Amino acid sequence: MELATRELEAKGRAAKAASKKLTFLSTEIKNKALLSIAEALITQKDEILAANRIDYTQAKSSGMNEAMLDRLLLSAARLEDMSQDVRMVAALPDPVGEVFEMRALPNGLQIGKKRIPLGVIGAIYESRPNVTIDISSLCLKSGNAVILRGGKESVNSNSALAKVAQQACLDAGVPQGAIEFIQSTERGLVNHMLGMKGVIDLIIPRGGSGLVQLVSENAAMPVLTGGIGVCHTYVDKSADLGKAVAIAYNAKVQRPTVCNALDCLLVHSQVAQTYLPAIAKEWAEAGVEIHCDKRAMAILKPVPSLKLAPAAEDDWGKEFLSLKAAIKVVDSLDEALEHIEKHGSGHSEAILTEDYSAVMRFLNEVDAACVYANASTRFTDGAQFGLGAEIGISTQKFHARGPMALKELTSYKWIIFGSGQVRP
Amino acid sequence: MELATRELEAKGRAAKAASKKLTFLSTEIKNKALLSIAEALITQKDEILAANRIDYTQAKSSGMNEAMLDRLLLSAARLEDMSQDVRMVAALPDPVGEVFEMRALPNGLQIGKKRIPLGVIGAIYESRPNVTIDISSLCLKSGNAVILRGGKESVNSNSALAKVAQQACLDAGVPQGAIEFIQSTERGLVNHMLGMKGVIDLIIPRGGSGLVQLVSENAAMPVLTGGIGVCHTYVDKSADLGKAVAIAYNAKVQRPTVCNALDCLLVHSQVAQTYLPAIAKEWAEAGVEIHCDKRAMAILKPVPSLKLAPAAEDDWGKEFLSLKAAIKVVDSLDEALEHIEKHGSGHSEAILTEDYSAVMRFLNEVDAACVYANASTRFTDGAQFGLGAEIGISTQKFHARGPMALKELTSYKWIIFGSGQVRP
Repeated sequence: MELATRELEAKGRAAKAASKKLTFLSTEIKNKALLSIAEALITQKDEILAANRIDYTQAKSSGMNEAMLDRLLLSAARLEDMSQDVRMVAALPDPVGEVFEMRALPNGLQIGKKRIPLGVIGAIYESRPNVTIDISSLCLKSGNAVILRGGKESVNSNSALAKVAQQACLDAGVPQGAIEFIQSTERGLVNHMLGMKGVIDLIIPRGGSGLVQLVSENAAMPVLTGGIGVCHTYVDKSADLGKAVAIAYNAKVQRPTVCNALDCLLVHSQVAQTYLPAIAKEWAEAGVEIHCDKRAMAILKPVPSLKLAPAAEDDWGKEFLSLKAAIKVVDSLDEALEHIEKHGSGHSEAILTEDYSAVMRFLNEVDAACVYANASTRFTDGAQFGLGAEIGISTQKFHARGPMALKELTSYKWIIFGSGQVRP
Repeated sequence: MELATRELEAKGRAAKAASKKLTFLSTEIKNKALLSIAEALITQKDEILAANRIDYTQAKSSGMNEAMLDRLLLSAARLEDMSQDVRMVAALPDPVGEVFEMRALPNGLQIGKKRIPLGVIGAIYESRPNVTIDISSLCLKSGNAVILRGGKESVNSNSALAKVAQQACLDAGVPQGAIEFIQSTERGLVNHMLGMKGVIDLIIPRGGSGLVQLVSENAAMPVLTGGIGVCHTYVDKSADLGKAVAIAYNAKVQRPTVCNALDCLLVHSQVAQTYLPAIAKEWAEAGVEIHCDKRAMAILKPVPSLKLAPAAEDDWGKEFLSLKAAIKVVDSLDEALEHIEKHGSGHSEAILTEDYSAVMRFLNEVDAACVYANASTRFTDGAQFGLGAEIGISTQKFHARGPMALKELTSYKWIIFGSGQVRP
């Protein structure tokens, strides 16, 4: 076995051993460690930024695009934000140990569920170094050990951040092995990691669809897939068009590079003539390029100063992650529902309408993690949903769906208090 | 593609199509179908029993052992029990459509979760024909379509039962495809089924450890593993020995062929001299063969009329599924905990003691689906736990753990009612 593989195996064993102790670690020690991580992100910013500079310089000289470079870049302000996020996690209630659904059975058995950590989480992620701290702090608070495998481009940043977190944990009395970081960026290691069933209890891929697919197809253990959002907003014939302009603008423009941003606008033909020029002008000012179906193109072509292109077949169901959007004119709610079923990724979908029955049909019939009436899909987020944090957005139905935070990183066991009961 | 594979694919498509309609099927129609299945199990008992006789005769002449033959056998009384179980499922509340955790966010968004079915369940099971009806009725009530693949030995019984269920469903207005049965018992079909990701949303294997392992290693979709129970009962030095005899007797003898039956008795050395002869005599009367470690053997050898054998190394961690049990004498709670961690299968574990701190340590530290104080592990069962039914017992931590019933066959979506909110 190669050196890097042996190291990965050893770190797996260390994480497994740590996870058994983490289950019983007091909230006090976990919070002490989290606050100490938050502090170290500020006091050790020089080392972290120096490591980030190495990654950034290499990435720039190798021709990485601006959007990716921006995701890679750390600054004093960004470290301050990360530090703030860790403080927020420290402030959240500890999910571990909660006893729920406790009740007495007719035979006198007292039976309930007790919340426990999942065990060891494997995180495989790309470019953004803040994920190192995000995932580490959420795993720590939920009593899980974590094995971190970041992307090659950000290895120096990730390594520096992991060291900061590891040291803060040790100082606070967290068992060694709670946060393990894989330094080697050899590609084969990911495959080896995906085979470590019995060591890693859950794999979370964070990155593009290529990574998510690779992981979900090859992992021997459960995978939390998600984060791929092909998001539709349907403007119904009974929409309040003023609200609909504001919402579609926000959904596309407020942060176009993320999974819950609008990709495709479906507009009822009865309001397309009025609505399309209104939203298109707003979008144009923000620099949005619009990929139109034929009917939308006929309406928008006469409008000056728009960036228009005819929609290609693969624009339907595309996650743009940029200032681009597709528009399609539809003749009914049914047509919108069919389009969403065919092209959506089960992430976030919205209907904008004042028609009560249309709202209820849409919320009932659309099969997605988050279905909205009259609001921006940009709200799909753990913090926005009031969960206090987020380790990812699940688009699967198994275990958890939508934004996942601390509770979604736990399982439970049944505890049964008897007084001599036997089964008749 | 072979004919059987093409048929499986077609049934997969039919189940998927049905599952979309099942989500919206009224509780009334689902219950009507269930009651009609319950009735048909009685009115059509002659056809079902005739089909079962073919399986039984073939199995007997091919040398199947008595325990397996007994599991395969149907009778008027057993059909009556099955019918009663289906009526119980009809009487349970419908989990689908429940809205929970609904709340208002500070920005006025009203946000909550709505319970939905998982989609299409694939069930792969061995010998017991009643599983055909069990799983069909639970899937139907929870709004899931199901694809049934039973064992070769019971194919005629399963086929007859599936037909009864399918006809009852159609008569009640359940969409065609809700219950699909795979008639061909070709071995390769299981592997093909395990690759049908995107069609089958969850696979449930019901059978021996070989089947469970095959499925969990090869399935492309999530798997609900479980049902393998290596169950320990630890008699502490502070146990009430009278209760401890009654509980260990019940756990081993009341139904030895099932997963929650006792496999290994751990006894504290301070009470072994008194306790072991007492339980051993009771067990001997029921015909239990005892595999003893050296210290237990030294105590039990002088006792007359026992069936004793020295424990082999692989008796620790063995699921006996018969009137056999292993006994080990330990010197402390810690030694018992270590033994359980090393040899348990994470199913059901019990401590018998009057010592409060020992109870709390055991319930906290043992990592299993169900941990008991002073009760028989035989209670690990959906009906016994008050869930009304059971589709299986999960020994994994992801999604659900322990007895699984209707709620555990569902997922949820987030529903968000807005009034024009955009993300700041």
